[in-house]
Amino acid sequence: MATPATSHPTAEAGAGPAAEKPSDSYVQSFARGLSVIRAFNAEHPAQTLTEIAQASGLTRAGARRILLTLVGLGYVQADGRLFRLTPKILDLGFAYLTSMPFWNLAEPIMETLSQQVHESCSISVLDGTEIVYVLRVPARKIMTINLSIGSRLPAYCSSMGRVLLAGLPEAELDRVLRASDLRARTRNTVTDIDALKQVIADIRARGWAENDQELEEGLVSLAAPIRNRAGQVLAAINISGQANRTSAAEMIQNFLPPLLAASEKISNLVGLRT
Amino acid sequence: MATPATSHPTAEAGAGPAAEKPSDSYVQSFARGLSVIRAFNAEHPAQTLTEIAQASGLTRAGARRILLTLVGLGYVQADGRLFRLTPKILDLGFAYLTSMPFWNLAEPIMETLSQQVHESCSISVLDGTEIVYVLRVPARKIMTINLSIGSRLPAYCSSMGRVLLAGLPEAELDRVLRASDLRARTRNTVTDIDALKQVIADIRARGWAENDQELEEGLVSLAAPIRNRAGQVLAAINISGQANRTSAAEMIQNFLPPLLAASEKISNLVGLRT
Repeated sequence: MATPATSHPTAEAGAGPAAEKPSDSYVQSFARGLSVIRAFNAEHPAQTLTEIAQASGLTRAGARRILLTLVGLGYVQADGRLFRLTPKILDLGFAYLTSMPFWNLAEPIMETLSQQVHESCSISVLDGTEIVYVLRVPARKIMTINLSIGSRLPAYCSSMGRVLLAGLPEAELDRVLRASDLRARTRNTVTDIDALKQVIADIRARGWAENDQELEEGLVSLAAPIRNRAGQVLAAINISGQANRTSAAEMIQNFLPPLLAASEKISNLVGLRT
Repeated sequence: MATPATSHPTAEAGAGPAAEKPSDSYVQSFARGLSVIRAFNAEHPAQTLTEIAQASGLTRAGARRILLTLVGLGYVQADGRLFRLTPKILDLGFAYLTSMPFWNLAEPIMETLSQQVHESCSISVLDGTEIVYVLRVPARKIMTINLSIGSRLPAYCSSMGRVLLAGLPEAELDRVLRASDLRARTRNTVTDIDALKQVIADIRARGWAENDQELEEGLVSLAAPIRNRAGQVLAAINISGQANRTSAAEMIQNFLPPLLAASEKISNLVGLRT
């Protein structure tokens, strides 16, 4: 795609007139199936029919029908009375991850960067008011927060989030900030919308973001954009560290040049594909 | 769960008599929705309605109905005539990953192991005749094959696959081997069923597997099981390397002790949860 893309789904999707929209019952059935999948998590890896019905807000009969469908398709397995997800579920996310234009290009560059600075390196994309981690190269040190592919963080108070917000048109930025739950997660967190817009304008101008303990006490990070050939921000790449080991000022001095070099290298490679 | 689990979905799932099974049309609709998601990949990250209909074997009308549903649920976005997946898709796989009993426990141990041996370290689980990567800590070196979470490899000719096969009851092992496409991927690949059973029996007896270029020329690896408290094999952990850097014999001498220590450490931690 050489032309600028919009992420807003509209009638221009070639989906035809409103009369052709899928019936509510169909949409609802599909949504319920997906909500059953999402009822499983670290606290509830295996659940009974009754527990799943409660977690997903379905009747027992409705949950049973969906579970049998998911078992039939191989996405859920039954161990006695307990149901659990199967690894086939990963095929769905894998379809997304391999769809990204920096798939297979970014990781070797991230690995080199991570070894250079001895800190973790991640790439994320924007989804509404949140960022979603799509690639990560961990450093050996134990982090205070454990983030892996699929993890989410609020955009307004994270370095990658602000880089991604800086890539939005003004009206869209305003909409996302107004939809965000702007809470002071530490005593440093900027929560005022006008102050945030100024911070984001500065990031847009200089091309990178720092985060000095606005997300969590002790957590510092630097982020830069990954762009396509048209210059649009597709994703953000960051290095995160701990303030008691590396101050924000030290991070900027030592880690910013290799981070910017990595983000440019990935953007150039993406440019060959987009 | 303290009792041994079976992965075969049967009537014991508490799902009621056959009369309560979901209608074929419902199952088919759900399956089609998921097949549309899986129509996206590295070669086809953005597709038109016509392309998606072709890739998923649906009519244009059917594909349109499902795409509108997926757009409505936020899993697909429309850019002009093109559709693409959104990062929300990752929530589904994330539900699975965080459901694993070694979630958050294994990664720090894998990172330490990877830094110790300067090679990549991965964890995978069995899905039918294939293994699926669920965790991975890459080393900086460029691998000949690029594997990330969700990647699949055949079980019969990979070190982790054979460790996972060694954890199956005999009848199930036989069934999986007979369902496998036993091809000679290199001149070293064992493809005879009886010979494979002997290799797998040896792995069961000694508790680890080596793979000396049976999957791909130049690729060597070692794998060991991760078990729950009842001793069942839940997953396999491996170290992979390149034959021109480290021979299989050197891997066994230098990498096997830290690999076995890591697999035991993870199994012990899992035992506290299962």
